[in-house]
Amino acid sequence: MDYKHGGNIYELNNKEKIVDFSSNINPLGPPKGLKETIENACDSIEKYPDPNYTDMREKLAKIYSLKKENFVMGNGGIQVIHNTLEFLEFKKALIVVPTFIEYEKALKRFNKDFKYYYLKEENDFILKTDELLASDLSDIDLIILCTPNNPTGAYINKKELIDLVRNLNQLKINILIDEAFIDFLDDQTSMMDQIPKYNNLIITRSLTKFFAVPGLRLGFLVTSNKALVSKINLLRESWSVNVFANQLFFRLFDDDQYIEETKKFIVEEANRLYNLLVDIQGLKVYKPSVNYIFFKSNKNISWKEELLKYNILIRHCNNYVGLNERFFRVAVKTKNQNNLLIKVMNKIMEAFNE
Amino acid sequence: MDYKHGGNIYELNNKEKIVDFSSNINPLGPPKGLKETIENACDSIEKYPDPNYTDMREKLAKIYSLKKENFVMGNGGIQVIHNTLEFLEFKKALIVVPTFIEYEKALKRFNKDFKYYYLKEENDFILKTDELLASDLSDIDLIILCTPNNPTGAYINKKELIDLVRNLNQLKINILIDEAFIDFLDDQTSMMDQIPKYNNLIITRSLTKFFAVPGLRLGFLVTSNKALVSKINLLRESWSVNVFANQLFFRLFDDDQYIEETKKFIVEEANRLYNLLVDIQGLKVYKPSVNYIFFKSNKNISWKEELLKYNILIRHCNNYVGLNERFFRVAVKTKNQNNLLIKVMNKIMEAFNE
Repeated sequence: MDYKHGGNIYELNNKEKIVDFSSNINPLGPPKGLKETIENACDSIEKYPDPNYTDMREKLAKIYSLKKENFVMGNGGIQVIHNTLEFLEFKKALIVVPTFIEYEKALKRFNKDFKYYYLKEENDFILKTDELLASDLSDIDLIILCTPNNPTGAYINKKELIDLVRNLNQLKINILIDEAFIDFLDDQTSMMDQIPKYNNLIITRSLTKFFAVPGLRLGFLVTSNKALVSKINLLRESWSVNVFANQLFFRLFDDDQYIEETKKFIVEEANRLYNLLVDIQGLKVYKPSVNYIFFKSNKNISWKEELLKYNILIRHCNNYVGLNERFFRVAVKTKNQNNLLIKVMNKIMEAFNE
Repeated sequence: MDYKHGGNIYELNNKEKIVDFSSNINPLGPPKGLKETIENACDSIEKYPDPNYTDMREKLAKIYSLKKENFVMGNGGIQVIHNTLEFLEFKKALIVVPTFIEYEKALKRFNKDFKYYYLKEENDFILKTDELLASDLSDIDLIILCTPNNPTGAYINKKELIDLVRNLNQLKINILIDEAFIDFLDDQTSMMDQIPKYNNLIITRSLTKFFAVPGLRLGFLVTSNKALVSKINLLRESWSVNVFANQLFFRLFDDDQYIEETKKFIVEEANRLYNLLVDIQGLKVYKPSVNYIFFKSNKNISWKEELLKYNILIRHCNNYVGLNERFFRVAVKTKNQNNLLIKVMNKIMEAFNE
């Protein structure tokens, strides 16, 4: 099994020249004032971080009207995903696929039993929650769901998701919802406000995608499951989050203008790029909800390899369970970069048709 | 069980005023030019780190005349300690105690069987490797050893250690040697050059103590055990090390003057502080080898609580297996700070004797 992600430009010889459409980061770049914040953080580098990350958890509790005890900070969203799958008590997980590969990697890591729930191509890989609930869940006590889903971009509306979580709660089935990309959507779509009501709900978040700082490594988990939180706090590696992430954290939520600009840009530009992709003959393009677009090539074109000849890196989705070599994902980047992508893709398609 | 470490000034109300003798960091502070390096790293923050950390592993391979495949980078030395105890194949570990608490925490985390090998107070907690080899090791296939040992400061001379590793290799017993503090000693004491010879040897290192950047989180593991390295690389969380640690790494080894000054300062100042502590009546002070000093109070004085009244935080070693409430550890800090510590300790002792 191959658990490789996108964004690994380091394997390429010409990495300086590459336009990277394979990692899904805010194309507007980090918020202004980043360097100043980082410089100030230099003064903290000589101290160990607060092993409890109390200041960050208090701030999150305030933002989301929850308790600081609901939160666990992580070295990227990935760490708290692994922590959940290690320390949550469950016998067998169900992964809704195709989806982010790291869940399966973590389940294998901790020798946890799991099976797949396949989203159907004829439904555009959109989850029908009533079908999921009607399926045989008798041996399942954890469902893993990514929404908006990576790589498809489909998301589940909130009313449906609340129904799902409530039903699963009655069945004593836990649900891990990975909201890594939800900041690009409206706040109202997040399940964060359901945390006090449902003890079976665990949400993981990334703070580095929206704020374009993946090199910083920062994410968190939120749940009402006290046993899970205290087990992570007791046994996980000490000092997981670095001081730069800790300091920058307090800048992230202050910049309303940047947040609004990003959301506005992503909605418009994702839509524009979608329409340009649709115009390319031979592609089935899936409607985007956030900052990346998923498509299937009806023709046998090696898009990744062809685009690399033009120094463009996209995500080949052939190593996702439930997909095959015909599926690809591209990030929504700046207008110029997106125009370049379209221009080159059209060129490749013309050459193929000749 | 309580797995708390030193250095947690965040639990204290007056944390701004605290002089922290509880965490063992280079008292000279980070090397010059740190801020410039960090500022330059800001340009990399928008990219995911190289998941394979090839550049750092190549540099380490060059420095230590080993292969880059021998190295695994970690989010602090602690991460690679946990990784070793998770992914190494072994049935039962022997921890040489008293020692750093994180080994036991990691063993509990991964449900690994273990027992203690107690260093004797009458031997000043110094390991006699022939006694260890003569003990019943029949059910043991991993020994965990910290040298220089935390919190005692005792270290094992290299010839003896090579004999130990060779004997254990014949017995098919792995040995994890944590060299977190060895940079403060002479390079010749490290077991790094034995890596090509002994497949049973795993060494973990911290890069943040000597270079006074614990907030940055950087460490590594080195071994010839290919199965261990590939299992960690396959299953551990992706992107564990942040870009600031990655960038600063390349500065760390360039500054020979800083490295020499630190070593010279630590030797002299540790010796001076040792002599001043010995002069305090009622203390048994253990000869230091690196940047911290371990002592036992023959009188029933709550040194930690008493010193906190003067805004000085030291490490109470009462939660180390094999020690009790009479044992303490202090870092070697700047001359002025060390003088302050001695002055206040003398004051406390006088008040106690009145």
